[in-house]
Amino acid sequence: MTRIAYVNGRYVPHGQAAVHVEDRGYQFSDGVYEVIAVHRGRLVDEHGHLDRLERSLGELRIAPPMTRRALRVVIGEVVRRNRLGHDGMIYLQVTRGVAPRDHAFPDAADSALVVTARRLPPFDAAAATGVDVITIPDIRWERRDIKSISLLPNVLGKQQAQDAGAYEAWMVDGEGQVTEGTLSNAWIVTAEGELVTRHADRAILSGITRRAVLELARGEGIGFVERPFTVDEAKAAREAFLTGTTVLVKPVLHIDGQAVGDGRAGPLTGKLAAFYAAHMKTQGESP
Amino acid sequence: MTRIAYVNGRYVPHGQAAVHVEDRGYQFSDGVYEVIAVHRGRLVDEHGHLDRLERSLGELRIAPPMTRRALRVVIGEVVRRNRLGHDGMIYLQVTRGVAPRDHAFPDAADSALVVTARRLPPFDAAAATGVDVITIPDIRWERRDIKSISLLPNVLGKQQAQDAGAYEAWMVDGEGQVTEGTLSNAWIVTAEGELVTRHADRAILSGITRRAVLELARGEGIGFVERPFTVDEAKAAREAFLTGTTVLVKPVLHIDGQAVGDGRAGPLTGKLAAFYAAHMKTQGESP
Repeated sequence: MTRIAYVNGRYVPHGQAAVHVEDRGYQFSDGVYEVIAVHRGRLVDEHGHLDRLERSLGELRIAPPMTRRALRVVIGEVVRRNRLGHDGMIYLQVTRGVAPRDHAFPDAADSALVVTARRLPPFDAAAATGVDVITIPDIRWERRDIKSISLLPNVLGKQQAQDAGAYEAWMVDGEGQVTEGTLSNAWIVTAEGELVTRHADRAILSGITRRAVLELARGEGIGFVERPFTVDEAKAAREAFLTGTTVLVKPVLHIDGQAVGDGRAGPLTGKLAAFYAAHMKTQGESP
Repeated sequence: MTRIAYVNGRYVPHGQAAVHVEDRGYQFSDGVYEVIAVHRGRLVDEHGHLDRLERSLGELRIAPPMTRRALRVVIGEVVRRNRLGHDGMIYLQVTRGVAPRDHAFPDAADSALVVTARRLPPFDAAAATGVDVITIPDIRWERRDIKSISLLPNVLGKQQAQDAGAYEAWMVDGEGQVTEGTLSNAWIVTAEGELVTRHADRAILSGITRRAVLELARGEGIGFVERPFTVDEAKAAREAFLTGTTVLVKPVLHIDGQAVGDGRAGPLTGKLAAFYAAHMKTQGESP
C-alpha cells in the first residue's frame, strides 16, 4: 500500500512529500519535532508529546501551525491512512516556514507542518534485546531541552557508535558526567542498588519515556534519584539501560567494551521494561 | 523575470524548488552551505568558498555531489539564468541526501545539491554604513569551523540582536572572549592600535572575507594579530568592524549601547573596507 504523508494542508503519497528549499527547517534547522509510538494502533503518551511540542515551539517563538485539537485530527488521519493498526511511529515536524533566507525571524511566514508514518516490527519482540554503548564528549549546543531538528551532533555521535560496533553513544559533559544518548536517555542502577537518571534541565531532553518510567517506578514503590552520574560510576554499575520513544526500555550490556554487571540484562531493568510494556498496552483515546 | 534554482540535477523556477521531507537536511540539519558574493557579474573568491565547502563535507563525511569542475558549471549557469550581471549572491547547500529517517549515515543516499541566486543592492553603496552589535553567550556546538546548516543558535542570536535594535550579536565564550558574530567575523583595533581578530580554530568559522582582509592587510604592511579578545577590550577599542561575504567590511559603532571610539567608522576600518572593495572588483575568471 502507498504510504501517505501530511504536508502543509495536504495528504500526499510519501514519495511526493516535499517542502520548499527556503523552508527554514532546510536552511537553518529552525524547527522542532516529535516521534510518537503507535502500539496496537494506539498512540502512546500522545498528550505528553504534544505538551513537549508546544513547549519547544514556545521556547523558539514559533507559532503552532494549528490548534492541538486540529493537530490530533491530522495525526489520527495519518495513522488511519497508513493503516497503522499494529506497531509503528508517527513523526511530526514543525518549522518556522518558508521565507527568503535571512537569519532573523521572518515578518510573515506560516509555520510548516509535516507528519509522516512508518510501520515497525512489533515492540513486544524488540524490547528485551540488550545493546552496547560507547561514551563520547558532548559537543552539542546548550539548549538540549528543546527538541529541535538541529541534530547534526546527534547524527555524528550515533554514527560514531555504529562505527565502533555499538548501538548508542552516551555523551559526556565537561565534568565527566553522562548527559544522555544521541536518541535516548541514560539510566543506571548503581553498585549500591540506586536507580539513577540525570535530572531534566537544559543539558538533556526531558524524555517522554523517561518520565513515564519514573512515574511507573514511583507507582511501584521503586526508589530513584534524578542526578548526574559519571562514566566511572556507570561502568561500576549493576545495571544500565536506555529509554526512548521507539527504543522503549533497553538494557545496556557493555559501556566502552566493559561489561555492566555480569554483562546481561539486569533484573530491575527487566521489571521496568515489563511495567513500560504494560503501560503501552493501556493507552486509550485521551480526552 | 523568473528566478531559477538548481535542485538535484534540474533548473526549476524558484517557487517550485523543492526537496523531499526526508532529505536529511530537513530532518537532521545534516548538511553544509556556502554563500558566494557576485559583484559586477563575477563571483568573489569562488575558489576559497569551494575549498571550504570541500573541507566541511570532508569533516562530516558527506560525499561531494559532483566534481568541482561540474559544480562551477552549475554555479555559472545559475548566475547566467538569473542574469546576475550586477550584484547579488549565490547560495549553495549540500546535504547527505534523502533516506528513511535514522540518525546514522544511510548506506545508500546521493548527496543533495541546491543552488539559488538572489540580486542585492550594489555592494558599493552598502559598504560604508556602520552598525551596532550586542554581546550574548555563545551557546553553539563545538564544531563551528564546519559551515553546517545547523544554524538554530545563530538564528536565535541574530533575532536577539534585532530585538535589541542592533544589527549583529557577538557571541562570547566561557572565558568572556568574543568568538564571532552570528553571520560575520569580529574585529577590533585595540586602544593601543593593534588590529585583532580571533584565530581560526574550532571555535569560529574561518571566514573567506576574514582571510581576504588579513591578506590585504599583510600586503599593505598593516600589522595584525590573530587572538581572542574580551568584551571589555572591544568596548575600550578605538575601532571595531565585522567581515562577511555579504556584509563585506562593516564598521561597528556601538557595542551593547556603548560607543566604540568616537562612535563613528574608524580610519583603519575605512582603509580595509576600501582595500576589500578593490579586491572585489579585481575578481576574474579563476583557473
